[in-house]
Amino acid sequence: MDYYSSQISKLIEEFTALPGIGAKSAQRLAFHVINMPVERVEELANAMVTARKKVCYCKECCTLTDQELCPICSKPDRDHTTIMVVENTRDLAAYEKTGKYNGVYHVLHGAISPMLGITPADLRMKELMIRLQADVKEVIIATNSTLEGEATAMYLSKLIKPSGIKVTKLASGVPVGGDLEYIDEVTLLRALDGRIVM
Amino acid sequence: MDYYSSQISKLIEEFTALPGIGAKSAQRLAFHVINMPVERVEELANAMVTARKKVCYCKECCTLTDQELCPICSKPDRDHTTIMVVENTRDLAAYEKTGKYNGVYHVLHGAISPMLGITPADLRMKELMIRLQADVKEVIIATNSTLEGEATAMYLSKLIKPSGIKVTKLASGVPVGGDLEYIDEVTLLRALDGRIVM
Repeated sequence: MDYYSSQISKLIEEFTALPGIGAKSAQRLAFHVINMPVERVEELANAMVTARKKVCYCKECCTLTDQELCPICSKPDRDHTTIMVVENTRDLAAYEKTGKYNGVYHVLHGAISPMLGITPADLRMKELMIRLQADVKEVIIATNSTLEGEATAMYLSKLIKPSGIKVTKLASGVPVGGDLEYIDEVTLLRALDGRIVM
Repeated sequence: MDYYSSQISKLIEEFTALPGIGAKSAQRLAFHVINMPVERVEELANAMVTARKKVCYCKECCTLTDQELCPICSKPDRDHTTIMVVENTRDLAAYEKTGKYNGVYHVLHGAISPMLGITPADLRMKELMIRLQADVKEVIIATNSTLEGEATAMYLSKLIKPSGIKVTKLASGVPVGGDLEYIDEVTLLRALDGRIVM
């Protein structure tokens, strides 16, 4: 990239290292930043550094937050006896956006993966087991519907069941608006297995 | 986004304001940054602020650079009598990547657009006219093949022609690898008009 001066090349390189940003987008972002007002660039730069430095784990549900307790765990009107276990904070956000779930969460920060060398000890499972000693009625396992997610769900369910707490998992099936023609066979079979009386 | 703590929301908002970054990508980027080592985040933040502060216009061709003269204008082995006029630094980079153009460039920083209120006075045309007083043999107008780009090309050509300098523009036609079936009519007619004897 010797047709760009060094500062521009450096910035493009930095952007390319981010996930989901290819060479073209990195260029576009770099030139956008160069044309932004200085204060706006400083604001963006500060937001990154501050977020990185201030963000920690919620001491209750282990989600990423900048307080001791996250906004959800600190709300008294949430049902603290129902815990939904998710893989990461983005999955938590996906359910929060529905606005219909009133329980609390527990964020594992990953899923068991022998391929990536992630074992149960690398996930926030110990913290979950400690929470279960309080008054908990149900644990909803909402890990992703991937090999890793399902292995994690199985593992957790075996771990929790002896305590007598109800363990559930999300329904698997045809997504709303989905066209059967384009849906994979495993999903089709799961939808059939899980069929509901009308 | 009250399910995210304020620092995370702020960072997601900042990312969403960038071009081509939607809500999902912004979330993904924010969590990526939060999980990056602190030094890497600081490096990225500094690259942005430094690039924004150091980058200026090349005093010759007006491209964005961090020196008085850009890497291309400062090379003595480039042909300084042939100037390719482009809309922005990314277009310059596109031609540089071909590695086959040995002339120099002139960056207008936009195109004439009555819609956006961009007039010739907003573009680096005066700087181009000053350059033409030196020994220049050809000006290749390589503005985009859009309404604005073509209007700019027409305007420039009328401006330069009286000086007796040769003015050319890029060929318009079927892109290499293009399937006629999917190409718009205007392009098809231009390709026909510009047909070449084999």
